[in-house]
Amino acid sequence: MSSILVVGSLAYDDVRTPVATRDGVLGGAASYFAMAASLYAPVRLVGVIGDDFRDEDIARLRDRGIDLAGLERRRGRSFRWTGTYDFALDTAETINTDLGVFGDWRPRVPDAFADSELVFLANIHPEIQLATLAQVKAPKAVALDTMNYWIEHEKDALVRVISKVDIISINEGEARQLCETFSIVRAAREILALGPKVLVVKRGEHGATLFTKDAMFLAPAYPLEEVVDPTGAGDTFAGGFIGYLAECAAFDDATLRRAVLHGSVCASFAVERFSVEGIAAADRAGIDQRYEALRAFTRV
Amino acid sequence: MSSILVVGSLAYDDVRTPVATRDGVLGGAASYFAMAASLYAPVRLVGVIGDDFRDEDIARLRDRGIDLAGLERRRGRSFRWTGTYDFALDTAETINTDLGVFGDWRPRVPDAFADSELVFLANIHPEIQLATLAQVKAPKAVALDTMNYWIEHEKDALVRVISKVDIISINEGEARQLCETFSIVRAAREILALGPKVLVVKRGEHGATLFTKDAMFLAPAYPLEEVVDPTGAGDTFAGGFIGYLAECAAFDDATLRRAVLHGSVCASFAVERFSVEGIAAADRAGIDQRYEALRAFTRV
Repeated sequence: MSSILVVGSLAYDDVRTPVATRDGVLGGAASYFAMAASLYAPVRLVGVIGDDFRDEDIARLRDRGIDLAGLERRRGRSFRWTGTYDFALDTAETINTDLGVFGDWRPRVPDAFADSELVFLANIHPEIQLATLAQVKAPKAVALDTMNYWIEHEKDALVRVISKVDIISINEGEARQLCETFSIVRAAREILALGPKVLVVKRGEHGATLFTKDAMFLAPAYPLEEVVDPTGAGDTFAGGFIGYLAECAAFDDATLRRAVLHGSVCASFAVERFSVEGIAAADRAGIDQRYEALRAFTRV
Repeated sequence: MSSILVVGSLAYDDVRTPVATRDGVLGGAASYFAMAASLYAPVRLVGVIGDDFRDEDIARLRDRGIDLAGLERRRGRSFRWTGTYDFALDTAETINTDLGVFGDWRPRVPDAFADSELVFLANIHPEIQLATLAQVKAPKAVALDTMNYWIEHEKDALVRVISKVDIISINEGEARQLCETFSIVRAAREILALGPKVLVVKRGEHGATLFTKDAMFLAPAYPLEEVVDPTGAGDTFAGGFIGYLAECAAFDDATLRRAVLHGSVCASFAVERFSVEGIAAADRAGIDQRYEALRAFTRV
């Protein structure tokens, strides 16, 4: 089993869906990722919170066994995101982003975390991803997520960090935007040519596609009767995916495929409730049950 | 091997995509369906054409071995559909529909076709689907397609015909509309409760989901680098799906799953070219090659 380092945001989210509203609930890429990945392997978290961050939310992370030695508390407000979803519950419309203490934060990886074996660089400025990566000694695999904003405004830096990582997980739309092509197959080839050995294209309710140099794996989303809040689905997916790889300490094709299904399963728990509540309530037995169900749903 | 009867439209389409335009090309649900299904089993076609219908298009169908004893030629124009696609190449916007001779057509199933073992009732007024079905003696399985217009305007008749068929194939959006729910899982349960034993929910580039009382099968679309014209993809899917069932003369769960993948493969050939050109150029060796590739893309 390998250790996992995650570097990214912890946030308070204000979320509106057509049926309900939640204000000031725990969110952020690192929160979702860590809650999922910690079901599989030891997780170390590097992040920043403001002085408004609730002790009970720190406790939720700690109770999951997440090592918070890299969690800085600074004066000011925690990162706050306000978003809304329409009836299709797919793409969030951002109403407001208040970076707070996250705005000028430069992650410092504690010495004790420098030997982490798997690293997940959650969505943040690509220059900061590069600077963070430089603080890790000899990771077995580095994974990266990003967003449309950096593709639009910091493409050169983003391409530089992509060339240094092993695994990249991005949305379908972002893959298209990055490569300026509508064809995902073509975009995948171009992204892998930048350096990564593994690309996961997340397709929301439609699942995810894994691309390597030699293979492609088409994974469905776990079918749910009802989705409550899709916030964090992608980061929870990444948590299950990287978590499973860490648990297996392997990166072969068969392990990668199973890891994608674990990502789908974790995401399915996340979207069933608001905030991190869904993935927080999941345990490994429940994960394994849905994993077997998902395999049965795809077996020919 | 079972015989297949298809009842539906033959049309001339005017199609606009962001990169090209084709006018007056062979289209219609029955054309696409029959071109695909005839790769698997004997196909009998019941349809109507106007006096503008080209002999060369009749020859294309006949050369595929399709029995055209149920093809009526009437005075007037053939059904003509004009549609346009945006860059995403997913949903067609209908610019114009000119029903022509199709408008007041009442299908007559020739006596020689009355013993057909599989029946595909392509999209048409549900009352006409019912009247057509009454002309077939003892089919092993009847499948039905429909469209949003009938769900909106002829729901009672549509529900009556749905209750008499074994297999229904509809789009994701139509399933939602029919059951007035966003949840496909819930819609599937409601549709199966109406009578059919098998439901296939078509999800375009995202694949298709098979629902039976006891099982669910999540099938991807065959991944293509480029889509040229998605017109007819759903009917070609149905042709591959029903064609494979006819070839196997079986309806067990394993056969149904393989049939869905054959549907995906046939649709992938259809969308690679305009009109029926893509599926017309496909042969069984090419189909089987993509089928094996698609299995490999989903194997865990």
